[in-house]
Amino acid sequence: MSKFTLALIQMKTGLDKAENISRALQMIRTAATEHKAKLISLPECFNSPYGTQYFADYAEPIPGPTVEALAQAAKEHKVYLIGGSIPEKKGTALYNTATVFGPDGSLMKTFRKLHLFDIDIPGKITFRESDSLQPGSEFCVLDTGFCKVGVAICYDIRFAELGLTYGKLGCDLIVYPGAFNMTTGPAHWRLLQQARALDNQLYIAAVSPARDETAGYVAWGHSSIVSPWADVLAEADHTEQIVTAEVDPAYVQQVRSQIPITKQRRLDLYRMEFKA
Amino acid sequence: MSKFTLALIQMKTGLDKAENISRALQMIRTAATEHKAKLISLPECFNSPYGTQYFADYAEPIPGPTVEALAQAAKEHKVYLIGGSIPEKKGTALYNTATVFGPDGSLMKTFRKLHLFDIDIPGKITFRESDSLQPGSEFCVLDTGFCKVGVAICYDIRFAELGLTYGKLGCDLIVYPGAFNMTTGPAHWRLLQQARALDNQLYIAAVSPARDETAGYVAWGHSSIVSPWADVLAEADHTEQIVTAEVDPAYVQQVRSQIPITKQRRLDLYRMEFKA
Repeated sequence: MSKFTLALIQMKTGLDKAENISRALQMIRTAATEHKAKLISLPECFNSPYGTQYFADYAEPIPGPTVEALAQAAKEHKVYLIGGSIPEKKGTALYNTATVFGPDGSLMKTFRKLHLFDIDIPGKITFRESDSLQPGSEFCVLDTGFCKVGVAICYDIRFAELGLTYGKLGCDLIVYPGAFNMTTGPAHWRLLQQARALDNQLYIAAVSPARDETAGYVAWGHSSIVSPWADVLAEADHTEQIVTAEVDPAYVQQVRSQIPITKQRRLDLYRMEFKA
Repeated sequence: MSKFTLALIQMKTGLDKAENISRALQMIRTAATEHKAKLISLPECFNSPYGTQYFADYAEPIPGPTVEALAQAAKEHKVYLIGGSIPEKKGTALYNTATVFGPDGSLMKTFRKLHLFDIDIPGKITFRESDSLQPGSEFCVLDTGFCKVGVAICYDIRFAELGLTYGKLGCDLIVYPGAFNMTTGPAHWRLLQQARALDNQLYIAAVSPARDETAGYVAWGHSSIVSPWADVLAEADHTEQIVTAEVDPAYVQQVRSQIPITKQRRLDLYRMEFKA
């Protein structure tokens, strides 16, 4: 376990799928060559606009053209790559799916968003992801050899139980590609990252698209990386940019030894059970 | 379920036990008569200095003189009263124990701190509550008729599982008498309250003693009340004062209907089990 640079790609996304993919590849190149990142993550729904009316049109099978482009990029730059998420088509079902690639270009893992984004805040935002998507039913933990990384998507961050599960599975870092909005973003985006970091004493990263005020769904941006002590190590504003920070698995262990909550849990009184 | 005023007593505590109790009674009177509070909480360890060297000397049985004084105050002012915590002596064992009184002066509940404060942050703070105290083994939920209130103490707030348990038990509010310090206070005190509020969409209150720079253990202060949306409704600085806010159980339900995480949990994938 050694320190490494994590890079989050807060990219503009739009209606042109080919342009979205091209922009992602270009920014992955910058993250790998200029920032020397060993682990790179794209944002949620990076090859498509975010909206239930778009998912079917932009969806692809996995593997498919987008995944092949990402695999090639991971291999070229010899990086671990979390391919944000894309609308996935499998049979007649659609999912919001993250893909994870190794530095050899292999597709190591996929993760389908577990908790669909169905909320209704009158006068602010109403969204029903379940109108077009199905939820997944598997956790996703990537072992890079230098860091154990949990992957989940956006609204999944609201569920403390999922964070606890990834903590128990030995993660040093959880990466949430996500696109909070102009209501929940300022209210909860950073707090939820800090909450998951504190509960489990691990790094949290959340990767948003850049804000596009003309889009149907306006993303908050503010991609960020939070330490196991809940310090915000790096945070974007709303514009297109690459956010980086050093992730040190040894620091995870240090915080856990200083405030040893992971050993002090009262398993005689409560217990988080999860599917193996 | 109706709105009511919650008051937190951020009082000075010192070496003189009788003076600590007298000050608590005086501030309870102010909270009840001037602030019209229906639920009042004292801070952790309000009748004793906080330190393992003090607990045995200041400890009392429950019921005992301190509890009797609090019962009398609850009855006089017709309020629900969370008696912060005191060092409790039972046989040869010592506990850090909260007491809860009804408006008729009855001792409705007791709660012994579940997670003892054993931390070691070199050069900052080292504390081993377990050198002198035993942990409890029971949850504590008070039903006032107008609000369901979970009670836990200080370091207990770091354990997301306990918050989830109180959420599942139907609480609208969790009150944590607590005394964070000058290291963990600025880093985590407010964040942990907001984390527990967000995870469970309920009110969180944390009640600290006022800061005494001359004490062996210097409390952070900053008693506060956080809404189910994670807004900080009221927050003290470090000086002696009463912090109040309106608590509205209907707002708990409103937030839970807008962002319905309490119904969207994936119980097929994970599940918080707890002792009945």
